[in-house]
Amino acid sequence: MSQSTVLTIEALTLVVEEVFRAGGFSADHAAALGRVIVSGERDGCKSHGVYRVEGCLRTLKMGKVVPDAIPVVTADDSAIVRVEAKGGFANLAFEQGAPVLAERARALGLAAMVINDCSHFSALWPEIEILTDQGLAAIAMCPSYATVAPTGGTEPLLGTNPLAFGWPRPGKNPYVFDFATSVAARGEIELYRRAGKPLPEGWALDANGQPTTDPEAALAGAMLTFGGHKGSAISTMIELLAGIMIGDMTSPEALEFLGVTTIAPRHGELIIAFSPEKFAANRGQNAFDRAEVLFEAIMGQGARLPSQRRFAARAEALTNGITLTAEEMAQLERLRTEGLAAVS
Amino acid sequence: MSQSTVLTIEALTLVVEEVFRAGGFSADHAAALGRVIVSGERDGCKSHGVYRVEGCLRTLKMGKVVPDAIPVVTADDSAIVRVEAKGGFANLAFEQGAPVLAERARALGLAAMVINDCSHFSALWPEIEILTDQGLAAIAMCPSYATVAPTGGTEPLLGTNPLAFGWPRPGKNPYVFDFATSVAARGEIELYRRAGKPLPEGWALDANGQPTTDPEAALAGAMLTFGGHKGSAISTMIELLAGIMIGDMTSPEALEFLGVTTIAPRHGELIIAFSPEKFAANRGQNAFDRAEVLFEAIMGQGARLPSQRRFAARAEALTNGITLTAEEMAQLERLRTEGLAAVS
Repeated sequence: MSQSTVLTIEALTLVVEEVFRAGGFSADHAAALGRVIVSGERDGCKSHGVYRVEGCLRTLKMGKVVPDAIPVVTADDSAIVRVEAKGGFANLAFEQGAPVLAERARALGLAAMVINDCSHFSALWPEIEILTDQGLAAIAMCPSYATVAPTGGTEPLLGTNPLAFGWPRPGKNPYVFDFATSVAARGEIELYRRAGKPLPEGWALDANGQPTTDPEAALAGAMLTFGGHKGSAISTMIELLAGIMIGDMTSPEALEFLGVTTIAPRHGELIIAFSPEKFAANRGQNAFDRAEVLFEAIMGQGARLPSQRRFAARAEALTNGITLTAEEMAQLERLRTEGLAAVS
Repeated sequence: MSQSTVLTIEALTLVVEEVFRAGGFSADHAAALGRVIVSGERDGCKSHGVYRVEGCLRTLKMGKVVPDAIPVVTADDSAIVRVEAKGGFANLAFEQGAPVLAERARALGLAAMVINDCSHFSALWPEIEILTDQGLAAIAMCPSYATVAPTGGTEPLLGTNPLAFGWPRPGKNPYVFDFATSVAARGEIELYRRAGKPLPEGWALDANGQPTTDPEAALAGAMLTFGGHKGSAISTMIELLAGIMIGDMTSPEALEFLGVTTIAPRHGELIIAFSPEKFAANRGQNAFDRAEVLFEAIMGQGARLPSQRRFAARAEALTNGITLTAEEMAQLERLRTEGLAAVS
């Protein structure tokens, strides 16, 4: 049996950063990518952890991401903050725009941040948590590439189109959810494929538009939305607001631009931030205290808050570090020493 | 067999308005209530049609709505428009705030309208369509009263918490969805109860927290959210944003305030309006034209857009009028002549 390796969060971050620099990314992008990928690994989200490193590098190798793009943040007297990602990964663009978004949301009560022309592969919760750390509630959404059929349809058109939300809990981990509007995230189907396991019923259609539980057939066909027509409607809303409205690619356009589904999709992103303090101000209430009453009531009947497993994994990782398999370590080392040449 | 009656939309609106005035509502409220209830009937949404008239009157009879409240709209240089409904029904408050919200959304790109201290019983799509008619995209949401268990829980805590969205389609009916975040709307379960039919599996828990298909047991127990934990998370988000953040009642608070679930709930509402033209402005694209490409692609693979059945019913009603049963007509006549005395 091969041995696993335990690294501190800081140590793993340095390793991943170095891999990205070796692949050709600028120091700023490598650092932002390292932060988000290690956050995934730290929180036990394997499908958004070091597993994603090669996909990011593949996106660069195929010429579909600008490795040294310098994001440009602009704000005016409107409620829209715009970040031109200039073809780079979204993570750095988000980090640079977030303080401006937070300032506008505090001033106006709510504000939106539009990220245009970015490549996007990460979960949305790291972004949401940057805003909840600022005392703001936030909604984030983006298209993906066409891999999901609308309810009643037969072919990929929508993306997995994630929707995320966060609410600050002073002194505690925030209330955060972040999920694909497909029944499952594409990364989950990938993991089933790698494990050679059949999918649960109701996740996907094959290339002929028929239900399937074969991960390969699903990846060649279409995934389905969560919650039937309601999830399909929400996914369509995301195409409209976070694709078309912001003047960026829809999921079918992103797929056409890329030609494949094995690299990070190119599109935009929409984030809406709210200041609960500003909204509640004239009502003489403390929104954060009242929210705790709701959370206690949810947990009091045995239900869980979303992200609790992730926060438990985080607490464990902060104390005991992150464990990677020998194969994961070997792949990172190969990518670090050989750069893009090691990317399949 | 009793005979049915066919009325024009205008004629039915006058009848319903008169019923509300006879019950004690001010002319402005009676007119706003008439518009929204006849819209429901016109669009074939029986659960939001004249069926709701008695519930509105019952809410008044029980002293839980102010029949002549004069809404107060305030706006400042923020992105928040506030409407104090002063204990009246939300419909008039919405109608009076909507033009101010539209002005702010056009100026800032997006803006929010908060309605506080209102009674609310209607679907959200009539509100959404007022905004899409102005060329705005919009999201609306509100709590209800505690009738839905969070995923993993056993007792009512969340409301049916509707979520609605609209996108303007110049020259056509808008893209609109409006659904309960419970598997079904409470009104649908009421209709099953009245029809003596069992509920589909997965809709509800009984008072012991066990699955049930009995409508009576479901109404005494808890409904479930659509889409499992994802729907539960969205419903919780609605409690946070459209209850707590706006300094208004959550669904458990609304139930405690009312004591019953047979009248219109008291809470607030949050509406977010977006100007697609302002968002897309610096990208040199026509968002409305691009959206049509998406809609064509959805329909091109045999899927339907939401609300199509409703718009078909509307076209039919505009041409051929609205058909009410003799029982429905008799009940309206009883309510018109006897006022609140006829309300059970």
